[in-house]
Amino acid sequence: MRLRVDLAYDGSGFSGWAKQPSLPSVQQTLQTALSKALRLDVSEVKTVVAGRTDSGVHATGQVCHLDLPSDHPLVAAPQRVDGELLKRLRGALGKTSSIWVNRVSIAPEGFDARFSPLRRRYEYRVADAVATKDPRLAGHTLWISDSLNVSAMNRLGKALLGLHDWASFCRAREGATTIRTMENFSWARDFEGVLCGTVVADAFCHSMVRSLVGAAISVGKGDLEASEVVALRDKADRTSAWKTMPAHGLTLVEVVYPKDRELARRAQLTRAPRAPLSD
Amino acid sequence: MRLRVDLAYDGSGFSGWAKQPSLPSVQQTLQTALSKALRLDVSEVKTVVAGRTDSGVHATGQVCHLDLPSDHPLVAAPQRVDGELLKRLRGALGKTSSIWVNRVSIAPEGFDARFSPLRRRYEYRVADAVATKDPRLAGHTLWISDSLNVSAMNRLGKALLGLHDWASFCRAREGATTIRTMENFSWARDFEGVLCGTVVADAFCHSMVRSLVGAAISVGKGDLEASEVVALRDKADRTSAWKTMPAHGLTLVEVVYPKDRELARRAQLTRAPRAPLSD
Repeated sequence: MRLRVDLAYDGSGFSGWAKQPSLPSVQQTLQTALSKALRLDVSEVKTVVAGRTDSGVHATGQVCHLDLPSDHPLVAAPQRVDGELLKRLRGALGKTSSIWVNRVSIAPEGFDARFSPLRRRYEYRVADAVATKDPRLAGHTLWISDSLNVSAMNRLGKALLGLHDWASFCRAREGATTIRTMENFSWARDFEGVLCGTVVADAFCHSMVRSLVGAAISVGKGDLEASEVVALRDKADRTSAWKTMPAHGLTLVEVVYPKDRELARRAQLTRAPRAPLSD
Repeated sequence: MRLRVDLAYDGSGFSGWAKQPSLPSVQQTLQTALSKALRLDVSEVKTVVAGRTDSGVHATGQVCHLDLPSDHPLVAAPQRVDGELLKRLRGALGKTSSIWVNRVSIAPEGFDARFSPLRRRYEYRVADAVATKDPRLAGHTLWISDSLNVSAMNRLGKALLGLHDWASFCRAREGATTIRTMENFSWARDFEGVLCGTVVADAFCHSMVRSLVGAAISVGKGDLEASEVVALRDKADRTSAWKTMPAHGLTLVEVVYPKDRELARRAQLTRAPRAPLSD
């Protein structure tokens, strides 16, 4: 039996999703809580995640899965998952409010948190000179002193869409593909004037969103033209023309999965062409 | 010359507005920055604030004033206040984003940050079982596991309005009046289902908003009837029928001043009847 866990976290206190020796990670914290809630040894709890968020990155719509040993009591009593297990898991996470489990459910046949998604959606918040700076939100908002031109940033966003090699925006990782389809990259000011950037793609390579945001901010400031960014993207090589923006402005807000009957096929499709390149 | 400072802060790291020996306070931090920006000795910088927020309480719309010595260079160059001084003050506060100065201006004749206000507006955020819990916002939102009945809370809010003695909601302070006019006490869910309470009064006594919120939550849970709260208020004596809610859910969002020509008269009016009772 495979469980799907939907969760949210404030990434400030974590060195990212992925478990690392002697550093606090979301994965380790969650797995420890899961092992308590499931009464399993922590070595038996292995989560697979939709978005391996970097150190300091937040999530409101993160998804992961884990497989239960076939002799686990819940396998014979699946009705206890979404009530009792959820309650135990929240209890095991304790009063800390930096991780919140929204839901625990039995994953449908073929579901794979990492390989089944159709797309991931990230949000990046920037308070520029025009925005009202709210210190209560500073933990997930980048503050800058310049004024940004939102129209120019949106022109860049449109110019970048589609299936491309994003190597210019990615920290190279041995054997990982940098070819992705970007479906949306747009900016709008909220009621406080804070620029909220939305980035949607089938998947992202390492540091890609924060690098895209860096390019957008350079265009918004007037330091770069959209056409220059597109030209540099087409070179598909690391560039220093823009910066990778800080992690704390970034949040994984949604992971979209196909309908249940398409889950397994989607996972196959995602895996297949990337197999030799997969991260 | 009197300066008006409009500021916002995340109260998490502070033991409240008021300066205290050996504890970090907003006032002390701001006065130190003001002394640098104004090139004055810190002992010469004395701020008077609109809302003396308690330990852990936030503000987005706080206002304070301070008087410059008559020989200060800015007195002869008031045009430098809203640009140069603001910039220097933000610089002196440093890269910390827990205090943000929105504006520095020359206060109009008769302005008194503490005594001129017509009203203060506070917000209290509660994420109950119905709300989406966002860990990024947990620093300024109370999380509870019950479901709250918003209509019942709003019926209480309406029943409480008007000029009353609020002693049942206040931590007693020698010589301080507990008679206030409550103009608004209402609740609405935001897009995430989080209950946002608004409390408006001419002024508040110590812990009054958090105690009002405690009563509202008891009514929202069904533990108390609105009529019981009203009856206890009319006894004007401390009660244990409801709790004082935690500070971190509370934010001072607005201080409303009258038109310039009414400032001095308002300050006089506020001060006069309270003179023997003033805190």
